[in-house]
Amino acid sequence: MNEIELVSRLAGKVRSVHPALISGIGDDCAIWRPRVNEDLVFTTDFLLEGVHFERDIYSPADIGHKALARGLSDIAAMGAEPRFCLLSLALAPDCDRRWIDSFYSGFLKLAKRFRVDLAGGDLSHSDRVLCDIVVCGAVPKGRALRRDGARAGDSIFVSGRLGRDWREYRRPVPRIELGLALRGRATACMDLTDGLSLDLHRLCLASGVAAAVENVPLRKGQTMDQGEDYELLWTMPARRKSPQGAIRIGGITTGRPGLVLLNGEPLPVRGYDHLQQ
Amino acid sequence: MNEIELVSRLAGKVRSVHPALISGIGDDCAIWRPRVNEDLVFTTDFLLEGVHFERDIYSPADIGHKALARGLSDIAAMGAEPRFCLLSLALAPDCDRRWIDSFYSGFLKLAKRFRVDLAGGDLSHSDRVLCDIVVCGAVPKGRALRRDGARAGDSIFVSGRLGRDWREYRRPVPRIELGLALRGRATACMDLTDGLSLDLHRLCLASGVAAAVENVPLRKGQTMDQGEDYELLWTMPARRKSPQGAIRIGGITTGRPGLVLLNGEPLPVRGYDHLQQ
Repeated sequence: MNEIELVSRLAGKVRSVHPALISGIGDDCAIWRPRVNEDLVFTTDFLLEGVHFERDIYSPADIGHKALARGLSDIAAMGAEPRFCLLSLALAPDCDRRWIDSFYSGFLKLAKRFRVDLAGGDLSHSDRVLCDIVVCGAVPKGRALRRDGARAGDSIFVSGRLGRDWREYRRPVPRIELGLALRGRATACMDLTDGLSLDLHRLCLASGVAAAVENVPLRKGQTMDQGEDYELLWTMPARRKSPQGAIRIGGITTGRPGLVLLNGEPLPVRGYDHLQQ
Repeated sequence: MNEIELVSRLAGKVRSVHPALISGIGDDCAIWRPRVNEDLVFTTDFLLEGVHFERDIYSPADIGHKALARGLSDIAAMGAEPRFCLLSLALAPDCDRRWIDSFYSGFLKLAKRFRVDLAGGDLSHSDRVLCDIVVCGAVPKGRALRRDGARAGDSIFVSGRLGRDWREYRRPVPRIELGLALRGRATACMDLTDGLSLDLHRLCLASGVAAAVENVPLRKGQTMDQGEDYELLWTMPARRKSPQGAIRIGGITTGRPGLVLLNGEPLPVRGYDHLQQ
């Protein structure tokens, strides 16, 4: 299979669901016609063999699923609705037609579930599989959930128990519906990809506040500085009603920006840092 | 240097030029507020060590420059003005602070020249340097230059001599101004990244036409199936005035879609194909 064949096979499989996608796969760029009174949000995320996954543990469909899920998790964290995505994919020498088809089946199944159009991307080769996903989402003007709005007195929530569940780890489900439910309620929001210790520190830094955390719901044998939870972390005034499944873990305080106390003791800023591996 | 430090250093260096960029580096997503009556165009391109460059030949600033230039070349091919970009970057173990600074200096110098805001991205590590660039550009509604508008009778042009010039190869200059000049004049346009033989075939396929080519301006010792020219290829009704520097290489004809004749003989569809390396 050559590039022209793969691209035309893909273009044949993909049915666009958003009329705003004027032109998708096959040109130098995808063309998107934005709506009035809507902000667009953009994220990009690597998924690299040897760093984020191994091919003896992940099936090709798992890899396709997770490549997109990583981007969708950031869209959820902004309280946005997914619109379209672009995928850069470098194939390894032993990725045959069956591997490629299975990869795209995992990818496109998740894309269909969350109504994301695959609008283009890039193809390359490498000695191992490399993915980089771009996702665009939309929110009503000015309504995106940022990291910098937490205020002293807010409660802090997470969307589920932290730590890796093996199935979820390979096929994480982005919290899109929850992100939408938090619009207009949360004061700050982000997804937990590098571990609660590091991510809550980042949220507090961005908002210029501190945090005191008491009850962190951890899976058995897990710690707070592992990453890849794909749960949401958010803050909200205590009087607002929290969505179903929300777990309160503490509150925002005044104090040195970025400082996080766990049961009264400073929590070390530790988590997954790509530059220190 | 850890991720938080690198991201905050970067955020400090970057001065946004577009007020439409509501929020850039540092959140889960960048936020962009689109204008009415404007279409947005999007492209993504890998630049991988061992595939697209070697570090003993490319300086870090060359790599930063070229990572962005590849994306900007696609924006030029759509007749669009660049707006913002996102960069996914995986660093190799021996990329120290000096390497990283030099990489971003090459990247940000080109970004400044073409008024592109660096709005975010992803950081990771790998055994070699991996870049994936996303660029967003804007065109007046419905005015993007696509590949599928070439009509029999149109002339075919390229923007310069084809084949690699060593300096340009490391620091290609995207043809942004030319792309803008072609808006409303060209019927189809693309950039020449995989070689004229393959790219003209693609343009003809997309437009459902054939082509007859006579005089192809090649650099000494070069062929038509090498890629990475970063020149534009476009078609235009013969009566329209061609922009300065345009070189006419032939004309669009009726005939089997995708067929390209060179001096009356079929030109083999050959060029840089990532899936056949």
